[in-house]
Amino acid sequence: MYTNVRRAVAGACLVVAIVMWALPSLAGEGMWTFDNPPRKQLKELYGFEPTQQWLDHLRLSSVRVGDGGSGSFVSPNGLLLTNDHVGRGQLQKLSTKDRDLVAEGFYARTPAEELKCPDLELNVLISMQDVTERVLGAVKEGMSSREALDARRSETAKITKESADKSGLKADIVSFYNGSEYWLYMYKKYTDVRLVMAPEVQIAFFGGDPDNFTFPRHDLDITFFRAYEDGKPANTAQYLKWKTAGAHEGDLVFVSGHPGSTNRLQTYAQTEYQRDVAYPARLKSLVRSLDLLKKYSSRGPEQARQAAGSIFGMENGRKASEGEYQGLLDRTLMAKKYQEDKDLRDRVDANPEWKRAYSWGWDTITSVLARQKLMSRQGTYRTIRGRLFQMALQLVQAAEELKKPNGERQAPYQEANLPGLKFRLFSPAPVYPELEEAQIADGLAEGIENIGADDPFLKEVLNGRTPEVAASELVAGTRMADVKVRRDLFEGGEKAVDASADPMIVLARKLSPVLAETRKWNEKYILGPNASALEAIGNARFAVYGKSVNPDATFTLRLSYGTIKGYPMNGTQAPPMTTLYGLYDRAYGFGNRGAWTLPQRFVDGVAELDLATPLDFVCTCDIIGGNSGSPVVDRDGAFVGLIFDGNIESLPGRFMYSESTNRAVAVHPAGIIECLRKLYNANGLADELEGVTQVQ
Amino acid sequence: MYTNVRRAVAGACLVVAIVMWALPSLAGEGMWTFDNPPRKQLKELYGFEPTQQWLDHLRLSSVRVGDGGSGSFVSPNGLLLTNDHVGRGQLQKLSTKDRDLVAEGFYARTPAEELKCPDLELNVLISMQDVTERVLGAVKEGMSSREALDARRSETAKITKESADKSGLKADIVSFYNGSEYWLYMYKKYTDVRLVMAPEVQIAFFGGDPDNFTFPRHDLDITFFRAYEDGKPANTAQYLKWKTAGAHEGDLVFVSGHPGSTNRLQTYAQTEYQRDVAYPARLKSLVRSLDLLKKYSSRGPEQARQAAGSIFGMENGRKASEGEYQGLLDRTLMAKKYQEDKDLRDRVDANPEWKRAYSWGWDTITSVLARQKLMSRQGTYRTIRGRLFQMALQLVQAAEELKKPNGERQAPYQEANLPGLKFRLFSPAPVYPELEEAQIADGLAEGIENIGADDPFLKEVLNGRTPEVAASELVAGTRMADVKVRRDLFEGGEKAVDASADPMIVLARKLSPVLAETRKWNEKYILGPNASALEAIGNARFAVYGKSVNPDATFTLRLSYGTIKGYPMNGTQAPPMTTLYGLYDRAYGFGNRGAWTLPQRFVDGVAELDLATPLDFVCTCDIIGGNSGSPVVDRDGAFVGLIFDGNIESLPGRFMYSESTNRAVAVHPAGIIECLRKLYNANGLADELEGVTQVQ
Repeated sequence: MYTNVRRAVAGACLVVAIVMWALPSLAGEGMWTFDNPPRKQLKELYGFEPTQQWLDHLRLSSVRVGDGGSGSFVSPNGLLLTNDHVGRGQLQKLSTKDRDLVAEGFYARTPAEELKCPDLELNVLISMQDVTERVLGAVKEGMSSREALDARRSETAKITKESADKSGLKADIVSFYNGSEYWLYMYKKYTDVRLVMAPEVQIAFFGGDPDNFTFPRHDLDITFFRAYEDGKPANTAQYLKWKTAGAHEGDLVFVSGHPGSTNRLQTYAQTEYQRDVAYPARLKSLVRSLDLLKKYSSRGPEQARQAAGSIFGMENGRKASEGEYQGLLDRTLMAKKYQEDKDLRDRVDANPEWKRAYSWGWDTITSVLARQKLMSRQGTYRTIRGRLFQMALQLVQAAEELKKPNGERQAPYQEANLPGLKFRLFSPAPVYPELEEAQIADGLAEGIENIGADDPFLKEVLNGRTPEVAASELVAGTRMADVKVRRDLFEGGEKAVDASADPMIVLARKLSPVLAETRKWNEKYILGPNASALEAIGNARFAVYGKSVNPDATFTLRLSYGTIKGYPMNGTQAPPMTTLYGLYDRAYGFGNRGAWTLPQRFVDGVAELDLATPLDFVCTCDIIGGNSGSPVVDRDGAFVGLIFDGNIESLPGRFMYSESTNRAVAVHPAGIIECLRKLYNANGLADELEGVTQVQ
Repeated sequence: MYTNVRRAVAGACLVVAIVMWALPSLAGEGMWTFDNPPRKQLKELYGFEPTQQWLDHLRLSSVRVGDGGSGSFVSPNGLLLTNDHVGRGQLQKLSTKDRDLVAEGFYARTPAEELKCPDLELNVLISMQDVTERVLGAVKEGMSSREALDARRSETAKITKESADKSGLKADIVSFYNGSEYWLYMYKKYTDVRLVMAPEVQIAFFGGDPDNFTFPRHDLDITFFRAYEDGKPANTAQYLKWKTAGAHEGDLVFVSGHPGSTNRLQTYAQTEYQRDVAYPARLKSLVRSLDLLKKYSSRGPEQARQAAGSIFGMENGRKASEGEYQGLLDRTLMAKKYQEDKDLRDRVDANPEWKRAYSWGWDTITSVLARQKLMSRQGTYRTIRGRLFQMALQLVQAAEELKKPNGERQAPYQEANLPGLKFRLFSPAPVYPELEEAQIADGLAEGIENIGADDPFLKEVLNGRTPEVAASELVAGTRMADVKVRRDLFEGGEKAVDASADPMIVLARKLSPVLAETRKWNEKYILGPNASALEAIGNARFAVYGKSVNPDATFTLRLSYGTIKGYPMNGTQAPPMTTLYGLYDRAYGFGNRGAWTLPQRFVDGVAELDLATPLDFVCTCDIIGGNSGSPVVDRDGAFVGLIFDGNIESLPGRFMYSESTNRAVAVHPAGIIECLRKLYNANGLADELEGVTQVQ
């Protein structure tokens, strides 16, 4: 079925370039790769032409934070600024029963006081190389879609290993435009990362779940880390210059960060599937998991501390998913998606060569979705929750996969990805057995309710036991929480794993073949055909629109642009900025209670503050989850803000950007400095940011 | 056709009382007459049982403000508190080219400095008497609906004249439940009313048109007047005790004021008519008038000052109408309206006696609406704008009507209403000829565009001239702006009016018969049948639901109840209150510019203020336009707030109340005292409010 359609019609592409339709791109729309910045829009709308140096400097100052966010270097001494909510996982892992860094915050007055994070990895994008020809060249005429998948995987593994070996950098292959392009992204990575400063979660996440994803907002969502190399603060010559005055209403600004994923280039059928199957299932499951965690929290303060991070993550996910789902339920948005998809296919079908080469993609997608719909329940519920089992399974799979040649392994076990795998697998971060047990039991109970206890996977896990008994026995008997045990098993390879009587390992051994079976089926009937079909549609889009469209987000570095601008909201205007005044207004408007309780420091120190100082602001830049912690920079490339959220109106942006109300929410640098100096006695840190003195 | 259905089925009403359906009334729903307060809800929901004394005191402290709002006495010396936007008309009339009281504000340190308002009338509701039997008794078996209209009018005139003559009070007949009940409301009136204090419009209406009808809000929308009797501050023994601490989140509160009108008891067909005909026409016309006034404003600062009040009124009306119209476009709301209407009619039709007595009402309404739809354009555009022509027409009509017996006159010219008519007609308030001319010309042009220059009314007015020439000649030649001229014409009666060569009077003489013709047609084909049909439906509603439903608003005194409570808004929660902090946040969030510019006094005095002082708050009380200036009181009947707005979510409340998001917006007494004392140096006034000292 599969043919390498891209090369087959390359000539046609060139021919039609002169009649190419440009998709009308809205001002502010797009998460652009750094190799293809929106030069035309920037010049036409703002008279701004970024130089290569400007782009390179911004790219090299931008940081991907392993825990799933973004950040930037803001001093030459490895000082990294990201969000408190991006750093929260590490804060929690560094906390104990007696010292809750999430709640209390932290400030290291000297480098010696900085706390080493258990498993935080930072990546800086050093180079980007188009390897499309090489990856797609591995796919030969006449291969099945499943074989094409294998061929691409094998070639990918080869490229990354070669590149990593040669450079000592981390090598990732990333595909854009539904697999129409493949790029080799090389990262410098930092694994010795230390905590410098974090405020109380109460001010970082002021307003809590209710205010999350909304504006006007009053959050100091900041956390500072420092990258170390060879035991010393890293020399980060490429860092963003700090501009305390920030930018102003109407100013052109940029966001450089790592949006996780968007679904804008999906076909209409895929978007419908999201609306009718994926979102309802996800929301149902999230609500159940949240209920469980809240019940667990109510067991006591220590349990509440353990679950707090997961609860935050799930509430965040639930609210984001609900906002996205509302977008899918919006008939106007869906009508536009339909029209976009139809326009593209109509143009493809109007050209006989294109029609032959690409049109089948849409039909394949539709038939794959029908099959996926039938299987989605199994996929969702054949799982065991928690970190303990996940680690056991990784150990079992590593033993199996590492025997194979690099090119035949599953992606996580390929050479280029092994250092990251080991970094996480051998993390000294604490595991909470009581919490794990509750999660495993509830996950199994949910599985039984949805696919029945006779499901081969669940039958194997339960082995005649109730979910509670199974969970209790698994957690009580395992030693997976011990880093040394995990390390020994990993290093002992297949022999050690086969010999282990640890109940988690035993279970993982039993389940690994079941999961492998499912994976193979998936690759043959879902992933393979899907990848080929999406590639065809991606190529079609290229043929029709060229690179005037930006690719869907893939947790790789992207550049967004826009202006600082209020927007129409609930009958009036949301302002471009909030000030420290607004923080106190919202706290006292709610009686300084609940999610709107001020940290005592803010109550006591109010007289010290210049309350007119901007705290948060909004801009029209196009972002999504993963952009948290991204720097906002101005024309000079100076740091003028810290992205931490999108407004509620931006959530349907996963599927479609809306210029009128889509806003990114950021912390203002003046608010950061004002609070650091006046409330946190963190003049050392503020001086480092403002370049007054430097850490020795 | 018409029969007095109410008495005919009275027996049946009693019989079915035991199976009466109570409409499920939402907590907080309803604008209740003081003779029928929501005792059941208050007891069940809050364990509160208002005594008759509590009700009487609140009623006698509440004031209807002639300019179209509400207010209350807040000291024993006639001190009245209402909104700045209710008092704005008087402020404007008291202003001159050189002293703009609206913009600058005003404070009289002593009674001697208080400024007498040109034409402000205050009414206090002294008594309420059910006169339904007497009014409806005037309608005899076999009368046509037109004859019934005359009979009711004649009886009404008789009752009000008798009552006014006997008591010296002002007498109004008001009909409730679509004319199923008639009540005689007797008012004490004050016509010597003086301005005590008004802040700058910039803080009274902070946020301007954008923030209007929204929350969170930060307005000090207050104005103080004082009622005088015999040249001295009135002795107002019934006044509300001031409670600076106000009420708190969750507290039960009440609003006592004068909601202007609601359309909740309309049939579904009437609501559809509003959606399809009335609102689109009104909005179109409002937008046009606003454009004209803004163009006029741009001629210069004095023109801007003259037009400011009208612009505010029209922008306010436009935003309210748009919000109401959105409600009508909401399918869910309309589906509920449909169901409500259908439920009532189904229950009526299920009872043969009811069916015979009431069911025809719905059909009549539907056929009247069809006729009205055809005529609505003429009605809308057969008019001449501005105060000058309106006064001329009143003089001509007065001369005609006063010849007739009281019972046969149009309502405005009946004895009981003459004092009010003269009070307004002889007002010394300034008229702005340049503005009048612009409005007349534009109104005529709009008429020509919509119903053509051949329309008999327009033809008469234009008399071959362009709208501009006609307007210019009318305004240039008239002496209607002179109070003495108007008084002489009124007192000279028919002879003086007939002899006048004033072009406005000449035109009014020509148009009066045309308008009378239209009025008669209207009474015969629209108003008469409508009144009878609505009365039948009103009686049907009584038969089915009794007085568990409250009547539509009629600019008469009503009691609403509810609690102080935030609400879900735009993805998060709106707080129950705002503070002075929030005022500064919103100003500086917008760069202290445009609608969000602080008066200089607030910029300079910020350090004096306790910024945590509550400024505005929201409660679930059910209100609508006309409630502006209403007091909010607590269980003790003490003053705890000043209504000045509803939130944007409350606007569809004209048609249907929604408990979850409908909120009334009020100024908090603590915010008033804080600003009076710290920014306005108005300690005398604050002392009078707090009862510290009293005006001598």
